[in-house]
Amino acid sequence: MKRRRLLKSGLALGTLTPLAGASAAMEIARPPWMNKPGTGFSNYGQPSEYEKAVIRWISANPAVTGNGVAWCPLHALAGMVTPNGLHFERHHHGVPQIDPVQHRLMVDGQVTRALSFSMEDLRRYPMRSHLGFIECGGNSSAGWHREPVQTSVSYIHGLVSCSEWCGVPLRVLLQEAGAAPDAGWVIAEGADAFAMQVSLPMDKAMDDTLVALYQNGEAVRPENGYPLRLVVPGWEGVLHVKWLRRLHVASEPAMARNETARYSDLMPSGKARQFSFTMDAKSVITSPHSAAPLPGPGHWQISGLAWSGRGRITRVDVSVDGGRSWSAAALTDPVLAKCLTRFQYGWVWDGKPTILQSRAVDESGYVQPTRETLLSARGHNAEFHYNAIVSWAIDADGAIEHVYA
Amino acid sequence: MKRRRLLKSGLALGTLTPLAGASAAMEIARPPWMNKPGTGFSNYGQPSEYEKAVIRWISANPAVTGNGVAWCPLHALAGMVTPNGLHFERHHHGVPQIDPVQHRLMVDGQVTRALSFSMEDLRRYPMRSHLGFIECGGNSSAGWHREPVQTSVSYIHGLVSCSEWCGVPLRVLLQEAGAAPDAGWVIAEGADAFAMQVSLPMDKAMDDTLVALYQNGEAVRPENGYPLRLVVPGWEGVLHVKWLRRLHVASEPAMARNETARYSDLMPSGKARQFSFTMDAKSVITSPHSAAPLPGPGHWQISGLAWSGRGRITRVDVSVDGGRSWSAAALTDPVLAKCLTRFQYGWVWDGKPTILQSRAVDESGYVQPTRETLLSARGHNAEFHYNAIVSWAIDADGAIEHVYA
Repeated sequence: MKRRRLLKSGLALGTLTPLAGASAAMEIARPPWMNKPGTGFSNYGQPSEYEKAVIRWISANPAVTGNGVAWCPLHALAGMVTPNGLHFERHHHGVPQIDPVQHRLMVDGQVTRALSFSMEDLRRYPMRSHLGFIECGGNSSAGWHREPVQTSVSYIHGLVSCSEWCGVPLRVLLQEAGAAPDAGWVIAEGADAFAMQVSLPMDKAMDDTLVALYQNGEAVRPENGYPLRLVVPGWEGVLHVKWLRRLHVASEPAMARNETARYSDLMPSGKARQFSFTMDAKSVITSPHSAAPLPGPGHWQISGLAWSGRGRITRVDVSVDGGRSWSAAALTDPVLAKCLTRFQYGWVWDGKPTILQSRAVDESGYVQPTRETLLSARGHNAEFHYNAIVSWAIDADGAIEHVYA
Repeated sequence: MKRRRLLKSGLALGTLTPLAGASAAMEIARPPWMNKPGTGFSNYGQPSEYEKAVIRWISANPAVTGNGVAWCPLHALAGMVTPNGLHFERHHHGVPQIDPVQHRLMVDGQVTRALSFSMEDLRRYPMRSHLGFIECGGNSSAGWHREPVQTSVSYIHGLVSCSEWCGVPLRVLLQEAGAAPDAGWVIAEGADAFAMQVSLPMDKAMDDTLVALYQNGEAVRPENGYPLRLVVPGWEGVLHVKWLRRLHVASEPAMARNETARYSDLMPSGKARQFSFTMDAKSVITSPHSAAPLPGPGHWQISGLAWSGRGRITRVDVSVDGGRSWSAAALTDPVLAKCLTRFQYGWVWDGKPTILQSRAVDESGYVQPTRETLLSARGHNAEFHYNAIVSWAIDADGAIEHVYA
């Protein structure tokens, strides 16, 4: 009867039985914070002092100011949205502090009239939102190492985050300028000291690309491109040019550093895979994670994130026996295209060593590959775009280790 | 041809023609921030210094510590998600600073076994998300005034915000405790100095109510209930008990202060409308807004928010002639149940005085009423649950005034 009600509830409770957690209630004494007034209101809120450990981890190049990354603490988050303060960062030469009144966006090149837009100009155009992920092409690149790197899931896979990006569809601005319909490319440039440049195919520019002014409701944060960021749904992070200042319509791509020497993959044939753009389907278990060994057998939730640049995630399978058998995890609503999707699977650990894995499938039918399959296709010289199944070994003490399985 | 492409793009561009904003591009000089390295990485990001004015506005009672509200600056936001730092606040006796290691949630009353859950216990249960709004039952209460209050849209309507709330379905915890299926009510209590209490009908408790640990990915902020908040999708804000410490299963409601003396409406019959719970469909134009008069005729975007406690918004109509004619606004995806929905409408202002209005329709067929209709049903003694159509007069100088029309 109870079991029936649990099933009826529509939750994938797995083998959950009562009392997974919880103890018999005693009459609870009033905690000290109920005995005095709390603190007052705040103009702009901050996390609790007790959450001080939930921060971005910085891996920066000491030789170049503001060159490096800051990792999103995936292991400490839940749901699918990333709070703005924790969105991953990747900069080449630091975060410019841009005065929005002075900032301009230029649209030029193969256009009938070159235009310059102030921020106030842009606010007069229709805006749309994309609630979706941005993932660095270098995310998970530790997966290419011969031996599994022993570090936090967030230090390996934390260059992905998810926000509601809101701004003007790029096609509207290109149409305003009269961009040549047969020009193949739009070269986007950022207003940072690196003068970041990338090449975006015109088809994508005219499809769902946004010039975003807002991130999760408020103005885009400086480290995410204030006051303007290009948002290219489902495509790799480098295309989402921050501090966007120029869109140059052209026949040829720029062949800039970050689309030739970087974010391209040297294939077994000796040729480079370039302009791969779309992020393939991927998933990763974020809990349990290596920094929090399981204290003992019993009920645990396996929780993680899945995403695909091709559209919606249709299924995430979880294996708790190193890939011998797989079961469908529950996907948390809403499941949106080109967006992080939270999955969860109720697991009863019997206390024996085992291996946990997750495998995403997207609406195009693409199945997240095993490491073996990915390596056989791409070889051992690639440095980017690693999306194979991730494996976590649990030993008899509950310790968790990154393994290749 | 161009017009066809604009229409094909699926945007409700209204009568937008080229050059709504923008000027002919000159070669743009490199701005100063491109000539030196930017700032480095940050562990927890903050908004740009140039966005200092985008804050919650505080209306607090000086006689009682932490009693009052802080308004969400709707006029400065876009999209549908509210960033955590700007979510509206309503407290009765301040924000308790709760140690999550000490915090317990008790489930007791008409149960087969009273239980106490630590935060670690709760993390062992399945979690689900609700991306949706919370609106204070007192939001927009200025609408009951005889004369239209002249202040910002955010000071009138800013007690609504939208987050992805993630946590354990309440029904799972009630089932763990063996809550009596025929007990009608769950009394929820907060761990603040006010010991906030409200009564939640069992049907809703067993439906989509969550015990939320996370807000937009990270731990719920202190002012929003850290470490635990009850989230009751589509129902009025007071039920979303912050700092949740106890769920008491009972046959009768508590008849607590905030469900009798407050959040009830004195009807023309002399009887009180109590336990109205569901927030009726509502919409409000957030831009243009009174603090930013229109500088002149031409293309402007009318943008706003719509929501309903009954489900999805199916339509928002906008009138630019004081309600004589109405046109459908574009709804920004995703349009989710019990969630804020952004609408937008491209408008060409001819420079003549006029009145702007918006009207929401939800999937139940409920149509946001005119002020006249609402007053004729509820009379003049109500103080809560005002959801009538809001009207903004534009004068020939572009100044914007709150009017009853």
